Amino acid sequence: MSSQQPRAATITDVAALAGVSIATVSKALNGRAQVREETRQRVLRAAEKLAFQPNALARGLISGQTRTVGLLTSDSVGRFGIPVLLGAEDAFGAGEMSVLLCDARGDAIREQHHLRTLLARRVDGLIVVGQSTDPRPSISRDLPLPVVYAYAPSEDPRDVSFVPDDVEGARAAVRHMLTIGRRRIAHITGPTHYQAARDRAEGVLSALEEAGLSLSCGQVLSGEWSQRWGRQAAEIALRTDPELDAVVCGSDQIAAGFVEAARERGRRVPDDVAVVGYDNWEVLATETRPPLTTIDMNLESLGRTAAQHLFAAIDGRATPGVHRMPCRLIIRGSTAPSGD
Amino acid sequence: MSSQQPRAATITDVAALAGVSIATVSKALNGRAQVREETRQRVLRAAEKLAFQPNALARGLISGQTRTVGLLTSDSVGRFGIPVLLGAEDAFGAGEMSVLLCDARGDAIREQHHLRTLLARRVDGLIVVGQSTDPRPSISRDLPLPVVYAYAPSEDPRDVSFVPDDVEGARAAVRHMLTIGRRRIAHITGPTHYQAARDRAEGVLSALEEAGLSLSCGQVLSGEWSQRWGRQAAEIALRTDPELDAVVCGSDQIAAGFVEAARERGRRVPDDVAVVGYDNWEVLATETRPPLTTIDMNLESLGRTAAQHLFAAIDGRATPGVHRMPCRLIIRGSTAPSGD
Repeated sequence: MSSQQPRAATITDVAALAGVSIATVSKALNGRAQVREETRQRVLRAAEKLAFQPNALARGLISGQTRTVGLLTSDSVGRFGIPVLLGAEDAFGAGEMSVLLCDARGDAIREQHHLRTLLARRVDGLIVVGQSTDPRPSISRDLPLPVVYAYAPSEDPRDVSFVPDDVEGARAAVRHMLTIGRRRIAHITGPTHYQAARDRAEGVLSALEEAGLSLSCGQVLSGEWSQRWGRQAAEIALRTDPELDAVVCGSDQIAAGFVEAARERGRRVPDDVAVVGYDNWEVLATETRPPLTTIDMNLESLGRTAAQHLFAAIDGRATPGVHRMPCRLIIRGSTAPSGD
Repeated sequence: MSSQQPRAATITDVAALAGVSIATVSKALNGRAQVREETRQRVLRAAEKLAFQPNALARGLISGQTRTVGLLTSDSVGRFGIPVLLGAEDAFGAGEMSVLLCDARGDAIREQHHLRTLLARRVDGLIVVGQSTDPRPSISRDLPLPVVYAYAPSEDPRDVSFVPDDVEGARAAVRHMLTIGRRRIAHITGPTHYQAARDRAEGVLSALEEAGLSLSCGQVLSGEWSQRWGRQAAEIALRTDPELDAVVCGSDQIAAGFVEAARERGRRVPDDVAVVGYDNWEVLATETRPPLTTIDMNLESLGRTAAQHLFAAIDGRATPGVHRMPCRLIIRGSTAPSGD
């Protein structure tokens, strides 16, 4: 725009020019039958003269629906929340809904402030996007609108939540290792105070048990969600079980650290030790040598599903509970036969 | 929320119960003087009876301002756009504005669709967040509202754009190398069809020229924005100029690849070769061995500044042109003296 711009005409301007009430303008522009044809023409001429655009606000006032949904996030880093958010935005965009974005940055008071703003804006519904898969307090009680939780589930089972199925994701990683003939499988992951670390460990252990195998190294190796921990854990694991032939990692960062340290210790990946990561964080997973086989949580798809469910909830067809969405295995060089 | 929820009362309901027009309800609730006290009391009683909440929509209709701004992004990967977006959201949140988020995903038709939606919603202003620093077509012509461009500048100099000062950022990297006594400085960067690659190369060359030095390896080494290219370029650079003592990289990914390959070739970082990255992508920059000295583009601050400028523009105080925002040098182990 240039330095000055025309003020957009409001419905009040149209009403004044046409000499009718705001309600009459709204009805006329929305094609309601209660307005006489002569009045409707006068309103239309006034609207045209003022270059008045069909106004979502006015339609919202009349219908009681704003066709706007709130997206409440708490993920200033954004690695997990952002794909969920984009998936939701995608679904809403297609449905001609608009998305009001609020980022609480993990702060409860800020979240309350944003919530009040969204309520004052009369959003038709709300998606709460978490920063981890740890259950979070419900905000749905006493709210006069439907709420869907994505990535972080609500603690209240009467709410609707969509989360990745991390137990099944980790099981798929182990089954893949079994398929390529590995038997001594270790698990290196993040801090156990994360639900994600606990779920993935549960998946690894249950899949091993089904195969009649026990975990290599005698225990889950829990540390940080970092490359540094992946390198340290590689030392520990390769010393504890020199016959180790596979590692399922709780994140791609851990896997990248493991692969790097294993190579420096002269272990070939995947020939000596096969490695599976978690997250399919492509910018990292495709850059390691070899690139990482990993579990993709389909976060954009999860966000889209949550948004579609919010439409259903707005129509009164909510399905309470925690919905676990499937993950998928992405096979790359860290487990694929080298071909020679 | 549980399975059913009460429909929120609309201004129409209040008007019907109080027996007045919608405009009168709005005026009464906004404390305008044109409403008789008796009428105002009747409206307030009706609003209270229906648990009608102060409604941002109704206020918007009356005032002509919606206190909503549109954020139009085109960054589905999100690494650069997201911090800008979060900074903007932060500034708007503090100012009690709400943010309508639209992600065009690099698609011009989708962008037009979103733009129409935002106009119909009568946003008070618009921030366009780009996915690279390459200039992008202006959307401001003929729009009846102020627009501010962030990260990707508008091609039209009459628009207001905020971009990182990449020339100066790269100059700061070179000056840092000179300060720690390095003289044979190479530059490894991304594809030259990116404005960012050209700006950073310009900064490197001008700072070297000022110091009376020429570029090591005889030319800028341009390739991909990837770790892989960083590794390949390390081989090329160390072969072309074995006396090389410093490398300024166009991204942290390139720097991470360089550091890794240099170590494998027995070069100590920083003792033999000092390395500076670009982006301060912390999750990568702090995980390399040693961690990367790098240039931070202050993207959240850039987003916040863009948002604050949009407030000024809404008040008719726009400052057209491309505003280059300062970057800052973050010093870590890849250039710091090792201490022994």
